[in-house]
Amino acid sequence: MASTNRGVTQADIDYFASAGINVVHSNEQLGGTYNTDYFNKYHGASQTIVFPKSTSQVSTILSHCNDSRISVVTQGGNSGTAGGAMAQQHELLLSLRDMDRIRDLDVISGVLVAEAGCILESLDEHVRKFEYIVPVDLGAKKRCMIGGNVSTNAGGLRYLRYGSLHGNVLGLEVVLPDGQVLDSLFTLKKDASGYDVKQLFIGAEGTLGVVTAVSLALAPKPQSEQLVVLGMDDFVTIQRTFVLARQLLGEIVSAFEFWERRCNELVVQYEGYSSPLSATHEFHVLIETRGSLARHDWEKMGLFLARLRAEQLIGESRVVRDPAEMGQVWLFRSQMANAHMKSGCMHVYDFSLASKHQHELLRAVKAHLHKHRLYACEQAVVRDVTFFGHVGDDNIHLQVIADEFGGAVEEAMEPWVYQWVGAHKGSVAAEHGLGAHKGQFLRYSKSPVLVDTMKALKRLLDPNDIMNPGKHVARA
Amino acid sequence: MASTNRGVTQADIDYFASAGINVVHSNEQLGGTYNTDYFNKYHGASQTIVFPKSTSQVSTILSHCNDSRISVVTQGGNSGTAGGAMAQQHELLLSLRDMDRIRDLDVISGVLVAEAGCILESLDEHVRKFEYIVPVDLGAKKRCMIGGNVSTNAGGLRYLRYGSLHGNVLGLEVVLPDGQVLDSLFTLKKDASGYDVKQLFIGAEGTLGVVTAVSLALAPKPQSEQLVVLGMDDFVTIQRTFVLARQLLGEIVSAFEFWERRCNELVVQYEGYSSPLSATHEFHVLIETRGSLARHDWEKMGLFLARLRAEQLIGESRVVRDPAEMGQVWLFRSQMANAHMKSGCMHVYDFSLASKHQHELLRAVKAHLHKHRLYACEQAVVRDVTFFGHVGDDNIHLQVIADEFGGAVEEAMEPWVYQWVGAHKGSVAAEHGLGAHKGQFLRYSKSPVLVDTMKALKRLLDPNDIMNPGKHVARA
Repeated sequence: MASTNRGVTQADIDYFASAGINVVHSNEQLGGTYNTDYFNKYHGASQTIVFPKSTSQVSTILSHCNDSRISVVTQGGNSGTAGGAMAQQHELLLSLRDMDRIRDLDVISGVLVAEAGCILESLDEHVRKFEYIVPVDLGAKKRCMIGGNVSTNAGGLRYLRYGSLHGNVLGLEVVLPDGQVLDSLFTLKKDASGYDVKQLFIGAEGTLGVVTAVSLALAPKPQSEQLVVLGMDDFVTIQRTFVLARQLLGEIVSAFEFWERRCNELVVQYEGYSSPLSATHEFHVLIETRGSLARHDWEKMGLFLARLRAEQLIGESRVVRDPAEMGQVWLFRSQMANAHMKSGCMHVYDFSLASKHQHELLRAVKAHLHKHRLYACEQAVVRDVTFFGHVGDDNIHLQVIADEFGGAVEEAMEPWVYQWVGAHKGSVAAEHGLGAHKGQFLRYSKSPVLVDTMKALKRLLDPNDIMNPGKHVARA
Repeated sequence: MASTNRGVTQADIDYFASAGINVVHSNEQLGGTYNTDYFNKYHGASQTIVFPKSTSQVSTILSHCNDSRISVVTQGGNSGTAGGAMAQQHELLLSLRDMDRIRDLDVISGVLVAEAGCILESLDEHVRKFEYIVPVDLGAKKRCMIGGNVSTNAGGLRYLRYGSLHGNVLGLEVVLPDGQVLDSLFTLKKDASGYDVKQLFIGAEGTLGVVTAVSLALAPKPQSEQLVVLGMDDFVTIQRTFVLARQLLGEIVSAFEFWERRCNELVVQYEGYSSPLSATHEFHVLIETRGSLARHDWEKMGLFLARLRAEQLIGESRVVRDPAEMGQVWLFRSQMANAHMKSGCMHVYDFSLASKHQHELLRAVKAHLHKHRLYACEQAVVRDVTFFGHVGDDNIHLQVIADEFGGAVEEAMEPWVYQWVGAHKGSVAAEHGLGAHKGQFLRYSKSPVLVDTMKALKRLLDPNDIMNPGKHVARA
């Protein structure tokens, strides 16, 4: 969907420069990562990027763009997987890289106020010195920025324990499309005074304005961490194990991940890491606990594992006690997407789906691709269909690894897979966002009244359609 | 602010009746509790009330009212304290009392779908049979309804542990002012597909539509509970104790309440309960923990209390082990508002404020009322100025008990106290909502751009201003 807005001219560039804004323009397309997304699937065509250093500079930029009808694509760490941060044609790129100050950390209340360009891992390292952690964590933490985490509503690895950004974000500073600064950068936990406007920007993927700063409720730093990796034969066993974990590990469970056999093989093959278990298993399960008293936490873990053995649920188990080894297991887990990417052209799907339907989906996809003579047959162009996910928060990642992007694979998969997920009451995007492509499938899981309300909100807040046009709900 | 909408006529009543809707009309004002709020402060003047039994009936009602420009005030358990559920003039009352079905409980994922008229305590009792609890709890639980909890964004007693409704509400069914049903009744934990529209209705106090059903992420039922009541001499000690609780009780802390001496005396005097401690203390502190293994939890409590004693932080402590006694202590705490109400005309304030300013506020209010010759002087009409609150979530309740409502006390207090709170970066409403009165003070704690955005959202979603007109942000 092409925007009717105009492109950036030399006069615009001069205007930004005269306002003291760092602007980079290229007669060709911009190099670096600006026009290529993390998985090398989406490619942008932008020639101009601005690097504001302050909220006031962001306001100057948007005000000018709104008046001049120039479209703007906001970029954080550019680690998204849905193409949301890629300029589709002549849009201006707005990078938040240089807005990376920590504005405040209240060590009594545990509230952090940080600018949008702060790298997630750096924030976490900083607050750990004060006995806190950032309550969101994900594979891209070395690269992603907190503004992007908020804008994509990233759920991540420890949602199970720390919950949603809709609960943990206490306030936002947002520059609206017309340049007005919407200051809702509150640091209070309870607040019931008026509509919670900031919530609209959580997951808006830069379509309603630019998030310039975030106020976050931090979680206390755990005093002890436990990790166990389990080998399992079937998906039902994972579900039973999860129920037992909730009972016996209770409030200390902090992550519960699974990945299937082929995912494990790909990480070993393409990343060169050793498998965390010695034997081959249909499923690997990683359970992490975090607590305030190591002796209690290990005892709970022991009782839990004893129960699993008594119920004959596990084949092989490895209790990891050494922090360095724990880091290696997490590194193995975090390389899953990269390993898939290296193994071929990765069509990646990010669904929310009730646990009871998750394995069924994988089987349905394989059968569907086979029926279309794309998988598990002589002329197959699909090499692998895999899934891994976060148990307890409904989120699975499904990968179809093919010889090429798009083409017959995409045609067979889409919209079929989105229809399947919608029909099973799932969501077409759990934590990666709608981005450039998935808005068109939104109606498979959201009702027309809801989608129309989303579109009305977009028109209200961005009447000139300058913010990330043609993406997200614009495609719905 | 008088609405220009018209009142209910006999023809409207006939229309509702012909559609099978239970409608009650009185030539005088309606009796019962419909026109009197819980604290007997706000009084309505409605003559007509409807009791829809289904979402479809709510849709019929709103569609008719929108076409006919009849204003609608939604009522749940009518336990609010801000007058939000009182009809101000000729509005139609819409009670959700008869929409009290539990639609679904997924015992694996722990997601409850319930209609808005379900009583909070009944829901909690129901889900406890399946090893879950409802993650919100408050003093009015025997009367308040889940739709009202969501609509006022009730935080309650265990926010510290279970977090915000913005995180725990997974979906809503809302009838929009024009009668369209906005179905966002999802049961998925992670979802990043489009704007999170449902968030706008959390805390909207019935100004954007009628919440007819709620999907809630439940919390696991604790396997053990611990309770301790502490006597303390000053507010600084409470803060230090909270820091130690976070360290030593960690993930099992589930409530941390304080109330000052006079609050304790009022409950003893007006409710006839025994004080939970034997001596008189400037402050009482109630700490509750909930965990999955009693032996561990009690051991942590022991370590915590030993540390408090070592630091000489407590005067008297009472560890409560018997569940019935725990119930009595909670009952004592929950009678705080009632006892104040019985002691005189209660001007109640519900602020969020950084902990470091909370005691300062109480002192400032006393000094201010004294300066106005209303408190602690010969002609005083103010009998008591008290506060109690939830430590760790920034929320305090401040009471000014006077001989009369309104008058000189209200004039002295307002807008002065809202300005004071705004100037100290607090919020004018933490969990009771803006209701009939407090919208006018919103600008002391929210920026003009934010307030204007709220008003624009109201115009977008309720263009005919039929939903709870003249309240909430309409007064801002």
